[in-house]
Amino acid sequence: MRVLGVDPGLTRCGIGIVDVAANRRATLVYVGVVQTPPTMALEQRLLAVSRGIRLALDEYRPTAMAVERVFAQHNLRTVMGTAQASGIALALGAEFGLAVGLHTPSEVKAAITGYGAAEKAQVGAMVARVLGLVAVPKPADAADALALAICHAWRGSAGGDFDTRPAVAALSAGATPAQLAWRAAERKAVSR
Amino acid sequence: MRVLGVDPGLTRCGIGIVDVAANRRATLVYVGVVQTPPTMALEQRLLAVSRGIRLALDEYRPTAMAVERVFAQHNLRTVMGTAQASGIALALGAEFGLAVGLHTPSEVKAAITGYGAAEKAQVGAMVARVLGLVAVPKPADAADALALAICHAWRGSAGGDFDTRPAVAALSAGATPAQLAWRAAERKAVSR
Repeated sequence: MRVLGVDPGLTRCGIGIVDVAANRRATLVYVGVVQTPPTMALEQRLLAVSRGIRLALDEYRPTAMAVERVFAQHNLRTVMGTAQASGIALALGAEFGLAVGLHTPSEVKAAITGYGAAEKAQVGAMVARVLGLVAVPKPADAADALALAICHAWRGSAGGDFDTRPAVAALSAGATPAQLAWRAAERKAVSR
Repeated sequence: MRVLGVDPGLTRCGIGIVDVAANRRATLVYVGVVQTPPTMALEQRLLAVSRGIRLALDEYRPTAMAVERVFAQHNLRTVMGTAQASGIALALGAEFGLAVGLHTPSEVKAAITGYGAAEKAQVGAMVARVLGLVAVPKPADAADALALAICHAWRGSAGGDFDTRPAVAALSAGATPAQLAWRAAERKAVSR
């Protein structure tokens, strides 16, 4: 399956696309970040987000979309812009006929690192390892969008209740060198 | 000027369009409400909102858009959906090249009734009188969308600082019978 992940935001909106095979091997298709300055009119910033996501949908035709679930509880100052950007992403997903999933940051971290309270840097490092990248995608919003897409594919393919350690399950069955390195790093991270 | 007002929401999203002349006389062009059930998938609800607003933009080609400013502080349960719908409206406004304005509920109430803490029923009654309608548009979201559009035109045409009683100013200069009835009702409402 080809999944487009969106880490919604106004200052930086991460967009990542991955192909995930039946054996859970994930490969990078696209990654980008829509950046707009706070001095730009709100509607223009949202239009830039809309255009960035639409371009990726038009160009790469994903079969599913994953968007970070936004909560009103934390960071009230920026949450409205984040929610507005997520609404645009979700409506575009429906417009393109995609299966759309919402995942919390904890769910993404658990799926990618096996640890729901993992730090951002750990998530980025795991994303790079899973995708076989020589460097962690920057800024963090890019890595987060890819993590969302991978999380969505892994959670979806698991079916039924959510396995909090699907990454480990995937590694147990035929790990690549990159995945082995990732598993070693994961153990190191979790044991800290 | 022709203004499209959006009272954003998932269960009901009000869309209203008014023409407002240089002398502040307002006439109804279109009013509608996009309604979606809570049982519908979030992305499908947002797509319905997007399509409803886009249809109105395509059909009536407004020159400006007014959207209710959403605050994260109140009603956390529904505020995320409201913010997501507002984001979609704002991006569409920018896509259609419109001047877009955000107005708080208090600003709209003040512009329409002369009283920032007016009740919803008062706003609806004033909207009907201003537009010369025989009945108050229902549901309240429809009336609120029209109130937003009227507020936007009146605030914009005032220029500079916001006059909290532009409705009264408009009435003083050449009032129609409907506007006189409205003024009388307004006095009654304010003196309560």
